[in-house]
Amino acid sequence: MRILLTNDDGIYAPGLRALRHELKKFGSVEVVAPATEQSAAGHSVTLTTPLIVQEVQDEEGKKMGWAVEGRPADCVKLALRELLGYQPDLIVSGLNAGSNAGINVLYSGTVAAAIEGAFYRITSIACSLEYTKAFPLDFSRGASLSAKVISQILEKKPTPGSLFNVNIPSLEKGQVRGIKTAPQNIAVYEETFARRVDPRGRTYYWLGADFGCPDPHPDTDTSALAEGFITVTPLQFNLTDHDKLKDLSGWHWP
Amino acid sequence: MRILLTNDDGIYAPGLRALRHELKKFGSVEVVAPATEQSAAGHSVTLTTPLIVQEVQDEEGKKMGWAVEGRPADCVKLALRELLGYQPDLIVSGLNAGSNAGINVLYSGTVAAAIEGAFYRITSIACSLEYTKAFPLDFSRGASLSAKVISQILEKKPTPGSLFNVNIPSLEKGQVRGIKTAPQNIAVYEETFARRVDPRGRTYYWLGADFGCPDPHPDTDTSALAEGFITVTPLQFNLTDHDKLKDLSGWHWP
Repeated sequence: MRILLTNDDGIYAPGLRALRHELKKFGSVEVVAPATEQSAAGHSVTLTTPLIVQEVQDEEGKKMGWAVEGRPADCVKLALRELLGYQPDLIVSGLNAGSNAGINVLYSGTVAAAIEGAFYRITSIACSLEYTKAFPLDFSRGASLSAKVISQILEKKPTPGSLFNVNIPSLEKGQVRGIKTAPQNIAVYEETFARRVDPRGRTYYWLGADFGCPDPHPDTDTSALAEGFITVTPLQFNLTDHDKLKDLSGWHWP
Repeated sequence: MRILLTNDDGIYAPGLRALRHELKKFGSVEVVAPATEQSAAGHSVTLTTPLIVQEVQDEEGKKMGWAVEGRPADCVKLALRELLGYQPDLIVSGLNAGSNAGINVLYSGTVAAAIEGAFYRITSIACSLEYTKAFPLDFSRGASLSAKVISQILEKKPTPGSLFNVNIPSLEKGQVRGIKTAPQNIAVYEETFARRVDPRGRTYYWLGADFGCPDPHPDTDTSALAEGFITVTPLQFNLTDHDKLKDLSGWHWP
């Protein structure tokens, strides 16, 4: 099995290293990841500037893959179109430092990289590890749990292009309570901006950390994760609102 | 009616000016838009750097709104949380220079700004004008057509948070043939990277223009637009694949 590994925290991020270690048990792993952190990059891609690419070695001096001075989705596109020279059997994105659940799925570069893989009809899995202030991120354990979930997904022989979003709860909550499949929550997060004046007299705003989701609908990814479950959410990238589309067809459009 | 206008081409883009002119017929219009071009920004948001904000005047010296040194989604979030001081009745994003149909919907900063508005349960409409090399972009006519579509959408009193993606065909195709409601096409575009070496000997890749969609499924946004129709696609931002979620619930998760 040939696996493409990417992320949005950058190729030197510890979460990627930990997940690579686990994925090598499944087959060969090549990494194409951003040269620098790209958190909240969403599904942005680079059109007007070049993507500088450099080979990167692992801790043992062996070729690990390529660092790309671009976005997570750029990495996947470039890997599939140019760098790998073959179509991988699986694309994994992560392990992200911080969960990607609810509407954060849309802001996430980690998930966008997986969506880009699904565009090309390759099964793609985004993996994220919940962060809580009081508890250090244990990437090693998070990657081990991610690999277990990936293994279970692969056992079911998903159709090519299947897309999954996996979140691992913070271990602050104690032992993982199990795995739950759940839909994406859609409520907006509470957020605040700090308003300040810069040394040149210009006003600026700076987004604070989100304060959690005031409306974690029961039986969604955000609520299951909060309860200490690993969450698995199958995703798709057709944003059409099919119900509303049916309503519209009844409208008279002159 | 109070309207928030944004875009991804930047606050000085002619498409925004043309659409503002039209929208003033509906009510008051305040603009919160990126200071510089943000094409293909997707749903990226700015977490780690500040958003510098400056007031911008229109051609007559009247206050038009605010330029934000950030992404399209930042602009909407900041407008709703800080700048406007009220919840607008409608958010419009555009008029974009270039269509946003098919999977380009996911790369689009124009659409992401509208999605951000829908997060806050405000009806949001993204408007884009197809570009073809042989024909100049006629923003004035594109904005006039956009306003007609917006007017028709508003007449139907959509529920708050309704989200629409509108594309205006290039006038190279002659008269607009009408309006079609259509789902988003999901096929990948043909794309190529140029591979070059920089003056310092580093390899870089540069994404070329897309060469069109090899699989424009009939009765989708891409095919209807290609046939010369204005397209209206109702969108939603829950990426859950509900069919696959049902399948998963039958899986045994240890």
